[in-house]
Amino acid sequence: MNTEFTPYYAVIFTSIQTENIEGYAEMAKQMEDLAKNQAGFISIDSARNAVGITVSYWESLEAIKHWKQHTDHLIAQQKGIKDWYAYYNVKICKVEREYSFNERS
Amino acid sequence: MNTEFTPYYAVIFTSIQTENIEGYAEMAKQMEDLAKNQAGFISIDSARNAVGITVSYWESLEAIKHWKQHTDHLIAQQKGIKDWYAYYNVKICKVEREYSFNERS
Repeated sequence: MNTEFTPYYAVIFTSIQTENIEGYAEMAKQMEDLAKNQAGFISIDSARNAVGITVSYWESLEAIKHWKQHTDHLIAQQKGIKDWYAYYNVKICKVEREYSFNERS
Repeated sequence: MNTEFTPYYAVIFTSIQTENIEGYAEMAKQMEDLAKNQAGFISIDSARNAVGITVSYWESLEAIKHWKQHTDHLIAQQKGIKDWYAYYNVKICKVEREYSFNERS
C-alpha cells in the first residue's frame, strides 16, 4: 500500500440462472478463454452457489467496452438472456486500492 | 441508465481457504448478519467454489472503514488469517455504473 497504485477496472457480473442451463458451462468456458485474449484483460474470478459472481479485471473502460461489444460475446449475451439467466446485474467499478494476505509470504 | 446514478462502493473479497475451516461457516454467517446492521451497508453477495468471492456494497468509504475496524470484525479477521485463509485479497472499488436484466420485468 506504500507503492504507487494504478487504478484499474472491475466488472462485477452477478447472476441467477434459470433451470435450463444446457450449453451454459461450455459457453462460460469459451467466453472466459476469449476474455483472457482481449487487449486490456487482467484477470477473472468466478464462483457460483445460489448466486453466481464473476469478476473480471481490466486496464481501462475502453477495454471493457470492446469486450462487451465483441461479436462472439454479443451472441453469448443474447443466448444468456434468452435461455440461461433469470436475472443478472453488471457493475462497472474503478478499483481504487487493494491489499492481500498470503500465508506463504 | 438514463437516470442520474449515485456512485457507491464495492468491497471485493476474494479468498482461498485452508483445509482447516472449522468454525468458518458460523463466523461467516455472523459477520454477514453484523455487516447488514452497519450504517451505510447496502447489500452483499457471496459464492464459493475453488475460490470464494464476497462482494459487499456500501454507501461511502467511511462506512467501509468503520466496518473494517468493527471490534467483532477485527476478531474475525485475525481468526481468518490464523486459521481459515491461505490467501485473500480485498479490493475497494467505486461503482461507476450498472445495468440489469430480469426475465420477469
